[in-house]
Amino acid sequence: MFFGGDYNPEQWPEDVWAQDVELMRRARVTLVTVGVFAWARLEPAPGRHDFGWLDRILDRLADAGIGVALATPTASPPPWFSLAHPEALPVDAAGVRLSHGSRDTYCASAPAYRSAARRIAAALAQRYHDHPALALWHVHNEYGTTCHCDLTAEAFRRWLRHRYGDLDTLNDAWTTAFWSQHYTDWAQIRPPRATQYLPNPTQVLDFRRFTSDELLAAYVEQRDLLRAATPGVPVTTNYVLGDWVPVDHARWAAEVDLVAIDHYPSDAGPAAEEEAAFAADLARGWARGSPGRPDWLLMETAPNLVYTADRMHTKEPGRMARNSLAAVARGSRGAMFFQWRAPRGGAELFHSALVPHAGPDSRVYREAVELGDRLARVAPAAAGVVEARVAVVYDEPSAWALRARALPSTRLDHLDDARRAHRALWRRGITADVVGGLDDLSGYAVVVLPGHYLMADRQAAALRAFVEAGGHLVATYLSGVADEHARIRTGGYPGALRDLLGVRVEEFHPLAVDASVKLSDGTTGDLWSETVHATGARVVASYADGVLAGRPAVTRHTVGAGTAWYVSTRLADDAYADLLHAVAADAGVGPVRPDLPPGVEVVTRRTGDRSWLFVLNHTATVCEVAASGVDLLTGATVDGVVRVPAGGSAVVGTG
Amino acid sequence: MFFGGDYNPEQWPEDVWAQDVELMRRARVTLVTVGVFAWARLEPAPGRHDFGWLDRILDRLADAGIGVALATPTASPPPWFSLAHPEALPVDAAGVRLSHGSRDTYCASAPAYRSAARRIAAALAQRYHDHPALALWHVHNEYGTTCHCDLTAEAFRRWLRHRYGDLDTLNDAWTTAFWSQHYTDWAQIRPPRATQYLPNPTQVLDFRRFTSDELLAAYVEQRDLLRAATPGVPVTTNYVLGDWVPVDHARWAAEVDLVAIDHYPSDAGPAAEEEAAFAADLARGWARGSPGRPDWLLMETAPNLVYTADRMHTKEPGRMARNSLAAVARGSRGAMFFQWRAPRGGAELFHSALVPHAGPDSRVYREAVELGDRLARVAPAAAGVVEARVAVVYDEPSAWALRARALPSTRLDHLDDARRAHRALWRRGITADVVGGLDDLSGYAVVVLPGHYLMADRQAAALRAFVEAGGHLVATYLSGVADEHARIRTGGYPGALRDLLGVRVEEFHPLAVDASVKLSDGTTGDLWSETVHATGARVVASYADGVLAGRPAVTRHTVGAGTAWYVSTRLADDAYADLLHAVAADAGVGPVRPDLPPGVEVVTRRTGDRSWLFVLNHTATVCEVAASGVDLLTGATVDGVVRVPAGGSAVVGTG
Amino acid sequence: MFFGGDYNPEQWPEDVWAQDVELMRRARVTLVTVGVFAWARLEPAPGRHDFGWLDRILDRLADAGIGVALATPTASPPPWFSLAHPEALPVDAAGVRLSHGSRDTYCASAPAYRSAARRIAAALAQRYHDHPALALWHVHNEYGTTCHCDLTAEAFRRWLRHRYGDLDTLNDAWTTAFWSQHYTDWAQIRPPRATQYLPNPTQVLDFRRFTSDELLAAYVEQRDLLRAATPGVPVTTNYVLGDWVPVDHARWAAEVDLVAIDHYPSDAGPAAEEEAAFAADLARGWARGSPGRPDWLLMETAPNLVYTADRMHTKEPGRMARNSLAAVARGSRGAMFFQWRAPRGGAELFHSALVPHAGPDSRVYREAVELGDRLARVAPAAAGVVEARVAVVYDEPSAWALRARALPSTRLDHLDDARRAHRALWRRGITADVVGGLDDLSGYAVVVLPGHYLMADRQAAALRAFVEAGGHLVATYLSGVADEHARIRTGGYPGALRDLLGVRVEEFHPLAVDASVKLSDGTTGDLWSETVHATGARVVASYADGVLAGRPAVTRHTVGAGTAWYVSTRLADDAYADLLHAVAADAGVGPVRPDLPPGVEVVTRRTGDRSWLFVLNHTATVCEVAASGVDLLTGATVDGVVRVPAGGSAVVGTG
Repeated sequence: MFFGGDYNPEQWPEDVWAQDVELMRRARVTLVTVGVFAWARLEPAPGRHDFGWLDRILDRLADAGIGVALATPTASPPPWFSLAHPEALPVDAAGVRLSHGSRDTYCASAPAYRSAARRIAAALAQRYHDHPALALWHVHNEYGTTCHCDLTAEAFRRWLRHRYGDLDTLNDAWTTAFWSQHYTDWAQIRPPRATQYLPNPTQVLDFRRFTSDELLAAYVEQRDLLRAATPGVPVTTNYVLGDWVPVDHARWAAEVDLVAIDHYPSDAGPAAEEEAAFAADLARGWARGSPGRPDWLLMETAPNLVYTADRMHTKEPGRMARNSLAAVARGSRGAMFFQWRAPRGGAELFHSALVPHAGPDSRVYREAVELGDRLARVAPAAAGVVEARVAVVYDEPSAWALRARALPSTRLDHLDDARRAHRALWRRGITADVVGGLDDLSGYAVVVLPGHYLMADRQAAALRAFVEAGGHLVATYLSGVADEHARIRTGGYPGALRDLLGVRVEEFHPLAVDASVKLSDGTTGDLWSETVHATGARVVASYADGVLAGRPAVTRHTVGAGTAWYVSTRLADDAYADLLHAVAADAGVGPVRPDLPPGVEVVTRRTGDRSWLFVLNHTATVCEVAASGVDLLTGATVDGVVRVPAGGSAVVGTG
Repeated sequence: MFFGGDYNPEQWPEDVWAQDVELMRRARVTLVTVGVFAWARLEPAPGRHDFGWLDRILDRLADAGIGVALATPTASPPPWFSLAHPEALPVDAAGVRLSHGSRDTYCASAPAYRSAARRIAAALAQRYHDHPALALWHVHNEYGTTCHCDLTAEAFRRWLRHRYGDLDTLNDAWTTAFWSQHYTDWAQIRPPRATQYLPNPTQVLDFRRFTSDELLAAYVEQRDLLRAATPGVPVTTNYVLGDWVPVDHARWAAEVDLVAIDHYPSDAGPAAEEEAAFAADLARGWARGSPGRPDWLLMETAPNLVYTADRMHTKEPGRMARNSLAAVARGSRGAMFFQWRAPRGGAELFHSALVPHAGPDSRVYREAVELGDRLARVAPAAAGVVEARVAVVYDEPSAWALRARALPSTRLDHLDDARRAHRALWRRGITADVVGGLDDLSGYAVVVLPGHYLMADRQAAALRAFVEAGGHLVATYLSGVADEHARIRTGGYPGALRDLLGVRVEEFHPLAVDASVKLSDGTTGDLWSETVHATGARVVASYADGVLAGRPAVTRHTVGAGTAWYVSTRLADDAYADLLHAVAADAGVGPVRPDLPPGVEVVTRRTGDRSWLFVLNHTATVCEVAASGVDLLTGATVDGVVRVPAGGSAVVGTG
Repeated sequence: MFFGGDYNPEQWPEDVWAQDVELMRRARVTLVTVGVFAWARLEPAPGRHDFGWLDRILDRLADAGIGVALATPTASPPPWFSLAHPEALPVDAAGVRLSHGSRDTYCASAPAYRSAARRIAAALAQRYHDHPALALWHVHNEYGTTCHCDLTAEAFRRWLRHRYGDLDTLNDAWTTAFWSQHYTDWAQIRPPRATQYLPNPTQVLDFRRFTSDELLAAYVEQRDLLRAATPGVPVTTNYVLGDWVPVDHARWAAEVDLVAIDHYPSDAGPAAEEEAAFAADLARGWARGSPGRPDWLLMETAPNLVYTADRMHTKEPGRMARNSLAAVARGSRGAMFFQWRAPRGGAELFHSALVPHAGPDSRVYREAVELGDRLARVAPAAAGVVEARVAVVYDEPSAWALRARALPSTRLDHLDDARRAHRALWRRGITADVVGGLDDLSGYAVVVLPGHYLMADRQAAALRAFVEAGGHLVATYLSGVADEHARIRTGGYPGALRDLLGVRVEEFHPLAVDASVKLSDGTTGDLWSETVHATGARVVASYADGVLAGRPAVTRHTVGAGTAWYVSTRLADDAYADLLHAVAADAGVGPVRPDLPPGVEVVTRRTGDRSWLFVLNHTATVCEVAASGVDLLTGATVDGVVRVPAGGSAVVGTG
């Protein structure tokens, strides 16, 4: 079980290091990430390395039995690099070349950057390939920098040539017949820079795909080099989540030995726990596509705070531990934090840390010590696997496509829709994987498509096969409306799924910000409604008011051995939860424990005949959950019911 | 009666064309606009033309008896052009040169662009001058691109030399004594680019005037060339409305053979109908300055949706037809739409169309068929002319000037004020023209000046002549305050109209966002108030509270045979409607029909002793309107009263 | 007593000048500021001067006995200069080089600009050094232009070399170990330009410090040159206030002969009077560091309006005079306005003026005449000095540092906190100086530190000395948390003041926008709360709800002969006023008059045994204040009580 966080000894004099290592030992830290932003210290001048300080701290850590996730520092080139290679600084959509002075000031398509990155990675691999502390390679940090420069333009054109082969195909995919954009020479194509009015949406979409692939290539280059040096040491990079990130993480999963995510919820209240569960199940979904084990790692989270729009909310006592166990419950191989020790200065000087500015005589460090103890106690559960029979599809290209301008509503948000679907299940205690649009669906009883807008033919075919084989599909509005090039499948929405769902949608009726629509079953929807014709499906609920009164709103279609539901509006949370609960029940899938109080989260990890029931009580009152076995946290025997205090946790193991 | 819309065969394989033409015939389409954004397909390489596809579709259309508004495609230069002529890409105020990838990526002052535009226009004229489908030339699309590049700077300086003759005159007009801006060489003058603080407001105003004239010159160049080739075919360009558009449409009217507007209301509710009536009456006002007939054409509107700030609102059943008849009622020569067939991709793939993504088996296409039938039935009414005895002045340079920074209120909006005046009349059933600030006022009984801020001496003289001759003038706050160079006419506001109105305004008292002020007659005003001294005028209403309590708010001045009203605050809608209704009554002007229910719109077109009464029932209940004759839509005889169903229309013809 | 304003004869034909001078005489104007933006008229071509018009107007003014604050016009280089020296136009953070066309389009680090500025200043000094009208040199106008160009980068590096000596020291101060920003060559350092993510906060802070010093050097250069020419004429520059201004005015005070401020309140209501009192006390605080007398000058304010976010609010009758006397009450040497005569055009054509667009037949000019009379009557009071025993610290670098991104709350605002402290005292009638962070505190009984975030060791030592010697200190949250390089003082907040305050703060708990927290004494706080450990201090009030319930909120620590209070939340206004009132009472400091009605402002100027009590009645009802002597405004004898009418003023002199 990994426990620890980002550790930046280069920010401190060496006399602090001894205290650090002692404090880590006291807290049972097992892994620290070292070197993430240390390029300027490791290579103070081109090709001249200074590894002395890193040698000393790695030795100290090894002596203390603490593993190291050794980072390549390539997310932040040093000042000397940017001065020598201004062409490797990123350029924004308006053509502004950014300056050094923050982090991530690199262009992934700049040869000078790529070669300097390979050089420092190789130097680290050569020096530390056999260091006893080395437990994991941590490549770069939060890949996510978009650039619009001329070097990027060249790389984009190469990528497009590879994707489309010839210009006719590209012109067709991009619908360049619209607005006189027909290309007759590859050289005419550029990244989507600032332009007069609406950009070409497929150009924008492909540019994000390209950026993802270009960053992935930069990662793979380093990974290959590290793998060659240390075949036995796993290599990963930490994914950053957020809708600004131009990375299709599902495609990256195949290239990492361990899916690692950084998770920073945005809500100070209970919604943070739902966000965290979503992120965990998303990571687990990605890990299904990874060559390694099905678990994953929460590589970064803030120990003691939640970033909201206007402030840093300090976590309530005990919340850090409960959040950590919740991640482990959902398959994380441990709990890692940004960061070990709070810095004195720099851009993130108030970011939370296990050793805060106040020092170890502090609640947060004391809670870290307790957490280290708890993680050690629950280590056996790491053998268990989380089993989910329900999948929620989150397809990053669809999310990107629905962020285009000039769509029927400015509030379309596939990520939010996926979170809503997941939240509906979470609130009913049903464990779900969040999977990518191209992932294998076998093994699932229920699949939810929350606005899966872009759909290639093979994806539609896979969904049909899933249903025909007895699967239960729930698709919501906009799923399957477009092909992979963001072109509408004409003849009636949702083109790719029309037959499977047994409906034909004639028109969209997006709703105003404050509007909602009633359904015949007493529920309500908002954001969206549609003129739905049932062409085979049975009408489950109709619109009860407005211009669509009497027309189908929710339908169900029997296909082969399965059923395909269509939901044409955005159901209110409770109604959505009821619907998904009912569909799951039809599919023979139930909650981990029925009738839990709101805010009590329960997940099982299982292997063979052994299982571990994680109970996370996010509420302010004690709760009781049916369980038998031994609570790993307390060592107490549980016989029938485990009582979990307000804000507390239990991990009941059996077998 | 024109009926049809933008048609883009280049977006579709030819096998769709046959279906298109058949669907057009079924809908009685009479005119389609072809080629608007087809430059890249018409001229795939410099000077190399591909007209084959256009030949084929024009022939098909001609065979089907469908006319073509043939567009010059110059609003969107092809990629090859932008690559070869980067200096012809527009530059924004911050100096960012925009990229190709949208539409309208041209600089109207770039010689390369102008010459390429002339070349393609000439090629089209040469090839299609005698094509039987050719009914109208549609130059460019929605002229409105502003550029701040160095080529534009040169053109701006040429325009300024022509306007001012010498630098002394310019320095005086621009008040360059303020902030040390005195110019001593023409070369020192630039477009208003990003600067440190507030720009020179007259420089900004003149730059908009220049941009309008520069775009007009680009239009005239093409028009002359097309006229020379086809003397009998009318030439026009479609105006786009919106306060970002740097075009003084009133000045353009003299150069088009048919005023054509694109109208996209911004409100999903009933305000859209008021907006549409305003746009129609504005177009009719412009058409008065056009050399052709007094009618105009609604060249583009969305068939089935209204764009609001946050979504595309789908029109209610029947609304498309009612809106179309409302345009015809106000003088449109028909109803044209953007667009015929919804595209599969491109930036506007969800824009509404007569043939939607769902195809012809759809409400919208069925309504299009009905609309075609109705337009054919009302065709006789096209002979009628809309008669208005009331004019509302909308002066685009005043609107621009009131959008300057550092004015007494950030909420000054001449366009909104003009709409309010028009709406007040609309709600009382009084037909009004919306005319430009330099238009001839003879023939009107009542003229409303809603914040006509910039006023040249000759405009003030024309208003005086209008009143002395018996006209009724209603001027609101800020009218006449500045001269044509946006310089204050000192000595007391509103300098240009002080004597005519018989008032002297000493100070402005702009009101806070949530504030209002009561008047002695029980009405209220907001936004604005003033210290008014009556110097000849009679006080009709006074301020009843606040710092101005007891001072004049609304005044009336008898001058010659007429009267001049002054309104120093922004009256609430009802009070404004009452006031304008009373002034009109004084002038002998009444509503088309008195005491109509709110939301019932009634307009008459007349010629000789024939007349057509259009009744548009925008309400949800049946209405009855006094009328006799024959309802062209139904063929029924109307004897005294026409009953119009909820959401329906009637066109009762007599004579 | 100075009375007058900015006068721009260059905007008017000479026939207006005679009227101007006559109107000035009638209003008893004593000083006008001439030439502020006249560079283009004074030097129409490089090195060619046209002083004729200036000679003529200065002669006229001298003949009328009106003094002149003669300005160097260097805030607005002429168009010819910008055309010849584009490198002297400022560049924004995104690299956009701004254009001429506004004002302040200069880069203070451009040698061409600096030399041209010296040249025109020298020419003015040479020509007018012995002109009888010359009363004051007014250098430039509102220094405040930031530039990010390469010339600035060079100057920034020179400044950094001077500040830090070597790169090791800079790297340490800037914490460049964070995010790989370690500098190995001075050439690598640049201004903080647009970058990928959060900038280095110390780099940003130092860049503002550098900008302040660079602008100061530009000022000093001119001042030295003017002083050399006219040793007897005082030299100043007018400070502009506002959080965008990159100027540390406290450091500038030592370089001016008279502190002069421009003050434009932002609130139309009574808060404007509190803002004005704060600005006045701030100016007086700066004047303490100035070599000249302790008074200062309100150099610009708007005669008749208040700029709010959405409009220009017209001042109520009498408010201009009351505001002017309020400034004099707090030490201003008079009342100067922007501006004398309202311009016809230019960017600020609606800015208020003593002679408005309406001309002298206007309320505002009549009030100006009255004001001139009043100022003449109160002239004896100019001998008096305002005595304050309370100081509120406002430290501009702290304000800058708290505007960094990624702080615990987005709403931290040191200026607002200082205003709140000052307002609390103002509402209790307690006179306070607002002093800089480095100012001498001797002479004060009470010092308030409202979020004095940056604190050097010597500042902390001075505060300790102040308390030990018997002073009363009130420090609020975030005071002393960081050192002068914005680095956290670790080990528990607030590091620099931990011992002095007798508290150790473990964690911050910023509050949500709509949240507040109750205290045990019934008061409430918002914005901020903290985990406070009393380590010597006595707990005065505790948190009464929330996660901190029961923990200390407000504490008091006895140190030597004094006391040190700590306030860990943002107290509501009343509670804050009660607290500061009580602390002041403990320190033997009381209000000028006790128990005044809200909105009645009372201040005393005193010298020897003579004193002048200023009473400003900002309320809508008459008030009575204990006083004896003679009311200078009316000449009436006051015996025990002065009655001041609603909106009126009194100045009761004794001795």
